[in-house]
Amino acid sequence: MEHSDFILTGDICFCETQRALKTLEGGFLVCLNGKSAGAFPRLPDEYASLPRIDYRGKLIIPGLTDLHTHAPQYGFRALGMDLELLEWLENRTFPEEARYRNLEYARRAYTLLVEDLKKGPNTRFCFFATVHTPATLLLMDLLEESGLVSFTGKVNMDRNCPESLRENDAAASLAATGEWLERCGAYRNTRPILTPRFIPSCTDELFRGLAEIQKEQKLPLQSHLSENKKEIAWVRELCPESKNYGDAYARRDLFGGDVPTIMAHCVWPGDDEIEALAQRGVFAAHCPQSNMNLSSGIAPVRRLLEAGVPLGLGSDVAGGAHASIFRAMTDAIQVSKLRRALVNEHEKALTLEEAFYLATAGGGAFFGQAGGNFFGPAGSFEPGFDFDAVVVNDAGIAGPEQPPLRDRLERIVYLSDERHITAKYVRGNRVA
Amino acid sequence: MEHSDFILTGDICFCETQRALKTLEGGFLVCLNGKSAGAFPRLPDEYASLPRIDYRGKLIIPGLTDLHTHAPQYGFRALGMDLELLEWLENRTFPEEARYRNLEYARRAYTLLVEDLKKGPNTRFCFFATVHTPATLLLMDLLEESGLVSFTGKVNMDRNCPESLRENDAAASLAATGEWLERCGAYRNTRPILTPRFIPSCTDELFRGLAEIQKEQKLPLQSHLSENKKEIAWVRELCPESKNYGDAYARRDLFGGDVPTIMAHCVWPGDDEIEALAQRGVFAAHCPQSNMNLSSGIAPVRRLLEAGVPLGLGSDVAGGAHASIFRAMTDAIQVSKLRRALVNEHEKALTLEEAFYLATAGGGAFFGQAGGNFFGPAGSFEPGFDFDAVVVNDAGIAGPEQPPLRDRLERIVYLSDERHITAKYVRGNRVA
Repeated sequence: MEHSDFILTGDICFCETQRALKTLEGGFLVCLNGKSAGAFPRLPDEYASLPRIDYRGKLIIPGLTDLHTHAPQYGFRALGMDLELLEWLENRTFPEEARYRNLEYARRAYTLLVEDLKKGPNTRFCFFATVHTPATLLLMDLLEESGLVSFTGKVNMDRNCPESLRENDAAASLAATGEWLERCGAYRNTRPILTPRFIPSCTDELFRGLAEIQKEQKLPLQSHLSENKKEIAWVRELCPESKNYGDAYARRDLFGGDVPTIMAHCVWPGDDEIEALAQRGVFAAHCPQSNMNLSSGIAPVRRLLEAGVPLGLGSDVAGGAHASIFRAMTDAIQVSKLRRALVNEHEKALTLEEAFYLATAGGGAFFGQAGGNFFGPAGSFEPGFDFDAVVVNDAGIAGPEQPPLRDRLERIVYLSDERHITAKYVRGNRVA
Repeated sequence: MEHSDFILTGDICFCETQRALKTLEGGFLVCLNGKSAGAFPRLPDEYASLPRIDYRGKLIIPGLTDLHTHAPQYGFRALGMDLELLEWLENRTFPEEARYRNLEYARRAYTLLVEDLKKGPNTRFCFFATVHTPATLLLMDLLEESGLVSFTGKVNMDRNCPESLRENDAAASLAATGEWLERCGAYRNTRPILTPRFIPSCTDELFRGLAEIQKEQKLPLQSHLSENKKEIAWVRELCPESKNYGDAYARRDLFGGDVPTIMAHCVWPGDDEIEALAQRGVFAAHCPQSNMNLSSGIAPVRRLLEAGVPLGLGSDVAGGAHASIFRAMTDAIQVSKLRRALVNEHEKALTLEEAFYLATAGGGAFFGQAGGNFFGPAGSFEPGFDFDAVVVNDAGIAGPEQPPLRDRLERIVYLSDERHITAKYVRGNRVA
């Protein structure tokens, strides 16, 4: 860890603890030992001697968190988008993931992924890898070196997938998981997360073993929940004793409570399920583009927010074609408007400020909850947050006049890409 | 007109007359006198002596048509996106458009617009300008010089808009329109189109005068139709004698038939209105992103297609934040999936091939219909089409392996931007 203490000056935007958007034109952002010491309109005397990096005229925002994405799917993003979830898994995803048995292929694909992600606005990620321990460790090596922060999970699957990808049985899957976890000790930027793919892909025996590992090692967990109507019907068939999809995880002791947990999608949760997510503090990863591309639907984000479900945004590459969480923000806003127009006129659309909160402190909170001694909360410049900052030069997004800072934020969210990113800091270290 | 005869070689994709996607890896595209002479897997002997431009390994597709966009709104795209249509017009659009009374402001803003559009994948446009004749002519000067092809319309508005933007009365609006049309004679790349903003913004007297001008000068026409529920209710109040919004135009003799016509949006058309669009050959400009951003809804594109309504795609900047019709293609596909998932499971989603057709030959057909001696049909490489071609280098859109050409097309549609455009030809002239 080589971060030092320094100051960034520029046009600062972030969400405060109470979710309000704070804008500071020509402000000062103080980083001490990898943590934010705050954002200030005038520099407090105590920091006067620190080195300053001048980003005047540029926006400085917290790094964005991608709360749900699949690393091995990056190579075929934006392909096969005319298929629905279950056909898409069968025809595109599983055959591609099977190739990660080959370490040379994995190295080529994961190198492209990590190089691209360094250039974008995201600083934190929750990755699904594949079932393969060597390829998962290779991905973690590359991520560790990049400086990006992530939870990365070797996937567990011992049923309902092609032979080429299926782990032989629960014992084999658990043994591979144990071996993988033993080899994660040295990583500082990338930490392991248990990753049973979803209810249909794991036997009860496998879930029991994962729950034991979870308890012993106090690991966080990620999986998928209530994404697609056919998938939900399938889970109902597989788990007739469960009240709903979430309850199927709960009965396996893997649904929040003491276990820091992310459930991706939550497109079709019932009232019971929403209540359980809130009560057990399970994070929902809202993946609006994937939910469009795979014809899943529109998650009831307003209801999740009002119920108090912890919420962040996910790209869900390759269900989503775009890795940037800026894109997930605008997708989330846009589909929330369609939900209001077509499903329930009483569900207010997401505002820019709300989407910005979800993309930053919303998803970043998971890192505080699950990070242990490794990560603090991310996504704000309030004192104590991990110092993840993205500097965006909006001069290239031409308009005849300069609008106020809040509007410049809106504009970069809709229009910027990695060309506009001048610098990126993660936990006080410059990574791009 | 300085185009010459030449050949492009590369990986060619286009839609044939029957809408099927044609892909030719390592093919030959022949341009004679600004028109396509066809795409060939092997070069016919008769063209052997023509100069060749080598784009091997790159995709060559027809230029895209933006069938509905507002030139003066480009400067505030991606701003104020949290408003609905009528509030957005009042608070953002009308105040901004009023500024185009100032020619210096207009020059600054329109120069940025045209410079940006030269770099993108669109080659043809149907522009709304503002009510101001001098600024509209200035825009047409800049467009003429750019080589891009367009229909551009001075807007008519003599009621229901702020004083700062309203034309004094019908007579003043018609006189300004006459003056504008007299000064359009010399343009070769940009032709005039009558542009009453929409039913609420024009008095009956103004519509009568425009219908007379239309008949005398045989001009095409563009306007807005059935975009938003509040707007439709307003039109119902204003035109109690009309069966529906489309009928209000029809009763004013400005709804297709002999008049080449584009109606933007068509989000909430009734069965009668769809039938009238088809029977009168009115083009519907589908603007999916704008319809999301302004909370309008999702146009029933499958029903429009099945009814035989001529259809193209529009960016509707600044209702839409993105000018590229690649983005309109993926937006159209994505919202069609949501429409199926949430509104009517029997309306099949748009495929990539269908969206590509709409973006190319679909919208391009309007130029054939309305272009008179100036423009031919665009959007295909079948013989006789105007030669608009975009060369896309997809090497920068990294994947670990090269997929088949059809899939490379899908990938550039979702992921490319102007960085990937190597060259752009419009009517045989290179413009970028």
